[in-house]
Amino acid sequence: MPSEALSARLGYSFRDAGLLRQALTHRSHSTPHNERLEFLGDAVLNCVIAGVLYERFPELSEGHLSRLRANLVNQDALSRLAIELDLGAELRLGEGELKSGGSRRPSILADALEALLGAMFLDGGFDRTLVAIHQLYAPLLDEIDPHELGKDPKTLLQEHLQARRLSLPQYTVVNVRGEAHAQRFQVECFIPELDIRTLGEGPSRRSAEQSAARFAYEMAAHS
Amino acid sequence: MPSEALSARLGYSFRDAGLLRQALTHRSHSTPHNERLEFLGDAVLNCVIAGVLYERFPELSEGHLSRLRANLVNQDALSRLAIELDLGAELRLGEGELKSGGSRRPSILADALEALLGAMFLDGGFDRTLVAIHQLYAPLLDEIDPHELGKDPKTLLQEHLQARRLSLPQYTVVNVRGEAHAQRFQVECFIPELDIRTLGEGPSRRSAEQSAARFAYEMAAHS
Repeated sequence: MPSEALSARLGYSFRDAGLLRQALTHRSHSTPHNERLEFLGDAVLNCVIAGVLYERFPELSEGHLSRLRANLVNQDALSRLAIELDLGAELRLGEGELKSGGSRRPSILADALEALLGAMFLDGGFDRTLVAIHQLYAPLLDEIDPHELGKDPKTLLQEHLQARRLSLPQYTVVNVRGEAHAQRFQVECFIPELDIRTLGEGPSRRSAEQSAARFAYEMAAHS
Repeated sequence: MPSEALSARLGYSFRDAGLLRQALTHRSHSTPHNERLEFLGDAVLNCVIAGVLYERFPELSEGHLSRLRANLVNQDALSRLAIELDLGAELRLGEGELKSGGSRRPSILADALEALLGAMFLDGGFDRTLVAIHQLYAPLLDEIDPHELGKDPKTLLQEHLQARRLSLPQYTVVNVRGEAHAQRFQVECFIPELDIRTLGEGPSRRSAEQSAARFAYEMAAHS
């Protein structure tokens, strides 16, 4: 059985212990596993974080809110929160996963945390889950740097490359498809010195460039 | 002022008339416009529909649930619902948009409906919005064909092409990036007879193929 300590750290006690157990069950262990709950929890989390950001940053556009949210609900953020909850110790993994260190794998941890939120939503409703998410995310929300907020991916990428004294990225339209009212652009972003090439896509050249830049920025920041 | 009739059709009366007005205000008209509310409403809608599908289709995997939801919350579905609500007549559009038929444009209608749901969430909370969404979506939910559900994009594309007596799509890996534990694949899907080429991306060759197939299916279905 999952520990009482987890309930305490989450600030939530499950009425239905079966739901909690399912949320902590990886598909390598047994059925019912946590993948459907993960789908639900992801949706609840996105909704709650959207609400928090909407209220907290009344001056930000929906594009900025959306990017900010993406940073808060991605695998990296979720797995770090899962580690703080010591979720790895509570997971039910198959033997192979267990031996290969599955309880420390970011994807498994992030998915289990989402599943836990989905289970909480079914068990206690939206408002109780919202309270738990607010509490869980309070430190991350307080960390948000308003100076980084307004910057689009092309700007972030450019600043990153300049800080490393590298030359600027080259953007090239590689494909345009669709009829005039519904065109789709594909743009390549090329950073010669890092040998990074990414593709972005969107309804305009600019949006495709931003999409390619976002991907390139993530790669450059980790290279 | 927005009509009483809209409230009746929505099954919801706003306490804060300003929020309702903002939800109906396109950015071409004035500030505050509805784009931030659209961000919020999109999140609420995704969450509610996730919950409905989770409960209604206990046998479906999270991948199927996710695709099913995508079909219910896309611009096409939302704009049709907006038309049934006669939302176009309530929109506040700038003169240019008004003259060019903006009140009938699917993107504007879909965005306004999402904004309306976001405003409802702020005005009345999650549970009231959930009730309104359930009511709004009841006909669409009843329409869902369980036979189509399990089909992935590659299967749908193949069946579509076979029905048109066209040859099968060709999938080619065009790029693999990243280290072994975090590879990203890019796959091209090519349909010679329709001159359609799309790119898909994902953490595995298979997922990249599915992504390319999804895009190709959308293009093929409209060509």
